[in-house]
Amino acid sequence: MQLPKESYASQRNLRFLLFEVLDSPGLSALSRFEGYDREAFELTLDAAKQLADRYLFPYYRAMDKDKAYFDGEQVRVHPAMKPGIKAIADGGWISAPQPFSDGGQQMPLVLHNAGLFLFYAANANLASHPFLTAGAANLIRTFGSQDLKDLFLERMYHGDWQGTMALTEPQAGSSLSDIISSAQPAGNDLYRIKGQKIYISGGDHDAVENVVHLLLARIEGAPAGTKGISLFVVPKFMPSAEGLKDNHVTTAGIYGKMGQKGYVAAHLMLGEQGDCLGYLVGEPNKGLSYMFQMMNEARIGTGLMATGSASAAYYASLKYAHERSQGRHPSNKDHTQAPVLIIEHADVRRMLLFQKAVIEGSLGILLKCSYYADLTHAAEGDRAIEAGYLLELLTPVAKSYPAEMGILSVSQGMQVLGGAGYTDDFPLEQYYRDIRVNAIYEGTTGIHGIDLLSRKIFLAEGKAVSLLMKEVKSAIDQGRSYPELAPYAEMLAQRAAALHQTTMKLIQTAMAETPEVFLADATLYLEFMGHLAAGWVWMEQGIAAMKGLEKNLQGAEAQFYLGKIQTLRYFFEYELPKTLALEARLNSAVRVTLETKPEFLH
Amino acid sequence: MQLPKESYASQRNLRFLLFEVLDSPGLSALSRFEGYDREAFELTLDAAKQLADRYLFPYYRAMDKDKAYFDGEQVRVHPAMKPGIKAIADGGWISAPQPFSDGGQQMPLVLHNAGLFLFYAANANLASHPFLTAGAANLIRTFGSQDLKDLFLERMYHGDWQGTMALTEPQAGSSLSDIISSAQPAGNDLYRIKGQKIYISGGDHDAVENVVHLLLARIEGAPAGTKGISLFVVPKFMPSAEGLKDNHVTTAGIYGKMGQKGYVAAHLMLGEQGDCLGYLVGEPNKGLSYMFQMMNEARIGTGLMATGSASAAYYASLKYAHERSQGRHPSNKDHTQAPVLIIEHADVRRMLLFQKAVIEGSLGILLKCSYYADLTHAAEGDRAIEAGYLLELLTPVAKSYPAEMGILSVSQGMQVLGGAGYTDDFPLEQYYRDIRVNAIYEGTTGIHGIDLLSRKIFLAEGKAVSLLMKEVKSAIDQGRSYPELAPYAEMLAQRAAALHQTTMKLIQTAMAETPEVFLADATLYLEFMGHLAAGWVWMEQGIAAMKGLEKNLQGAEAQFYLGKIQTLRYFFEYELPKTLALEARLNSAVRVTLETKPEFLH
Repeated sequence: MQLPKESYASQRNLRFLLFEVLDSPGLSALSRFEGYDREAFELTLDAAKQLADRYLFPYYRAMDKDKAYFDGEQVRVHPAMKPGIKAIADGGWISAPQPFSDGGQQMPLVLHNAGLFLFYAANANLASHPFLTAGAANLIRTFGSQDLKDLFLERMYHGDWQGTMALTEPQAGSSLSDIISSAQPAGNDLYRIKGQKIYISGGDHDAVENVVHLLLARIEGAPAGTKGISLFVVPKFMPSAEGLKDNHVTTAGIYGKMGQKGYVAAHLMLGEQGDCLGYLVGEPNKGLSYMFQMMNEARIGTGLMATGSASAAYYASLKYAHERSQGRHPSNKDHTQAPVLIIEHADVRRMLLFQKAVIEGSLGILLKCSYYADLTHAAEGDRAIEAGYLLELLTPVAKSYPAEMGILSVSQGMQVLGGAGYTDDFPLEQYYRDIRVNAIYEGTTGIHGIDLLSRKIFLAEGKAVSLLMKEVKSAIDQGRSYPELAPYAEMLAQRAAALHQTTMKLIQTAMAETPEVFLADATLYLEFMGHLAAGWVWMEQGIAAMKGLEKNLQGAEAQFYLGKIQTLRYFFEYELPKTLALEARLNSAVRVTLETKPEFLH
Repeated sequence: MQLPKESYASQRNLRFLLFEVLDSPGLSALSRFEGYDREAFELTLDAAKQLADRYLFPYYRAMDKDKAYFDGEQVRVHPAMKPGIKAIADGGWISAPQPFSDGGQQMPLVLHNAGLFLFYAANANLASHPFLTAGAANLIRTFGSQDLKDLFLERMYHGDWQGTMALTEPQAGSSLSDIISSAQPAGNDLYRIKGQKIYISGGDHDAVENVVHLLLARIEGAPAGTKGISLFVVPKFMPSAEGLKDNHVTTAGIYGKMGQKGYVAAHLMLGEQGDCLGYLVGEPNKGLSYMFQMMNEARIGTGLMATGSASAAYYASLKYAHERSQGRHPSNKDHTQAPVLIIEHADVRRMLLFQKAVIEGSLGILLKCSYYADLTHAAEGDRAIEAGYLLELLTPVAKSYPAEMGILSVSQGMQVLGGAGYTDDFPLEQYYRDIRVNAIYEGTTGIHGIDLLSRKIFLAEGKAVSLLMKEVKSAIDQGRSYPELAPYAEMLAQRAAALHQTTMKLIQTAMAETPEVFLADATLYLEFMGHLAAGWVWMEQGIAAMKGLEKNLQGAEAQFYLGKIQTLRYFFEYELPKTLALEARLNSAVRVTLETKPEFLH
């Protein structure tokens, strides 16, 4: 038996998803993506893997042990952070999806995000930095003036300056309508910013020369709520003809996080020790709508980060299962025989299959969303519009399914190792701590449930949902023609019908009842949609694998496709049935949570 | 709105379970438990709470921050460890369940374990030490000679000497048949021990004068497998007329654990640097059967530890939900109104109800098992025998349901706090790290699945299962007479029937197929049994709560019972339906894991 050769992510699986499930190189028929043929995809993936192998993966454990710290003045990060960020920037990754005219490479997001997945799998603590910068830079690029772009973009694209997303405030948390950071006009599109921001990822560190905060604040006299929020660029150091000048963005401290200890969450004070100036981006009071571009990108990014951590944990547990001997098969009572490798035990295989099903299902959803984003940007007419609807509908799922299921996946990875998995002799315990935050980043799972049920299912008068169901039906129809897949195609059809019926029932509730009643179980609805979306992409992967098997390949290639089919069977036998419980609850009229008074919880 | 007054565990709930669900003081009718009337129970619980409040809870966080370490010679633990262990010992807790004749108080286990739950909830890192000693001492008491008892018990009962369970070896792991530590006769019932033991909890530390290992090893020439394992008492320092003498039990190091950092897992080398002597306990080659007494006690203890951590995490998240304001109700679009407490949000209540359902369901199972243990020890005839069957059958469930569901419960507790929960500003992150090990301690969940399905359901020709089903049916029948409970009694009946049918189907598989096929999904079967057992104890709690409500109480007492009913509704609406998915899978003939070749996992 050969040991698995992957250490954090499967290159073969990425190619399967990009070339066999999706026709990603087919995007090159769109003028924006001209030249992105299969060879360009291959070269880019190889380059990403080499970069991750060299600059990222070797430092994952070290960034936890020698964690980032605040020295009273500045945050200090691991010495490998700077070369890693620079390597990613030098590879063009920060600006790659942007137009040539803005210094980018017009790289399809489906390819860019495949690379991003590799980087996150190799070292999410490191990779988070440049891709946060990418989102911030893209916000300036999309909505900022030419002056702003000239001032900031180049240094951000080069990885010299960190970008951040500065939204959360102590009194507001997830409720952005309650933001109170203030902005006073100071002339020349500049505003004097005062306030506090908390949990600012990458909010301060010494692997860059400057930190550029994309920050939400209220211009004096702005309306209450989300309609009075504006977007500002607030650098730590203000660029000027004389160089960088202190802009009075003070780090009050960093949070003691359970994981991702290489990547700080900072508490920032703005304008407390002197004038802190920010540039208004776009029009006043439209800040939140602009910020949604970065938030939506970051939600896909969070899904990729969770999937990356789960993937790396899977390969660590798979390696252990291939090396560790323990116990014998239940039918073998001969204690003089040598123990078997634990991968021989059915329950260990179950835990490995669970991980593989979650990771490859999550990645399937995420790359599909990326592909839709590409069509939205580069296709025309209905094709672009419909892809946009699907992307919007699936974004809460693409963020939450990988995050929530990824947490469980890493936990099963730890369980494969038993006691060893609980110790720092192996990396599982770090993945376990690190991945947990993904269900909190960029809107908690509860927030995404409400987004899905209160907004996304009504998108374009329900057309988004219809489009998704059409896609699911297409996979079911194709699946039915393969005897190996047909029973699972039927199961998917049955579960899709149950989701449809549940959705109709919830819409009736929305019309007849208060929003409180309608939304009470939104998180469960999101979970149902997540399992169904995973079922859909697994059916598509099954179809692609059956096509692969028709080629009568031998060796590793045949094993790859057989492994896909086996993992699909795992998914449909063990995972999709979980929707039975969700269906039962979502169709019950008993208002458990709403009828629970706080006094009952004691 | 009053803040919840509990900080780690509910005293009211313990009394409800002990006095209203179980008739624990009724045990005083048995001669062994004479005098343990309600007042004795109340006084004992109050004493436990006061002790935990003073000596345990204040040091829980500190034992993580100032973690135990190995100084090259000895393990150093937190300074609060010694007074805490002594306080528990001085309270008589280590020996309390033992007979008067052996220095105990003949305390019913149902009361002892209620206290143990409080101690674990207050500080599992600390409480683990004396209760590990209790299990080790009880093993000497039950199977050791009078000489051994005289040598060791008193100092162990007084908390001066630590007891341990030294089973695991590097090459064997969970497979105890592969133990190779050796024992050579050295005269006078003494044996020369050589070998290595790993993951030995409490295996060395400076809060005690001596450490007494209850250790499994093979006497030279013993048969292979589990039938050649003997039990030894191997102290770190050998007691002698001249005082304590070094016995060459060397600490090679301690493991860097993700959690429970106050409570070490040591790697021990025996007899490497000189003679290491051990006393044989009982007869040669019967060690494993003796050790099962300690393992079974420790399994209930692990369930209590998990439930304790989950309970403390629940109260931490409940406190936050009562203090933190954020957002508004979905129907309120007026941003000028103040935000509401997050406990007002349906999804936060759902997360709190989930925790409460898991904790109080787990505790219900565990105290019921403790009550059965009391009957086994003290009742007569069929009553004792039947209680013994139920205890044996339920032990894997009482260990695994609290451990597995407790992990998820603490995760939801963290989620209630959002970003704050991921930081060490709050204790959730420590509970999250600490509780994870309970699914590994004392046999991983997979091991307990096999124990349940391959041994326990066949116990006494299936009589154990029949007895359990009779108990479940009795709860269903009583539940049917309350309109509030009747629909859930029907649901429980339906799910119990599904479990019965699934069990029959699996037994057919056992007869027709290899053990590999039969046991492949044993973990899922355990999960099914866990949810069903929780449903059973929740129905019993519902019946007791309905009786409480009949008294037309006001205020906190009424709220308590209403909260019970509401949590029961949560359990039956959201939790028990999870068995639908397990039933679907367990009744499928598709052999997913067995047909997955290692080569398919890549």
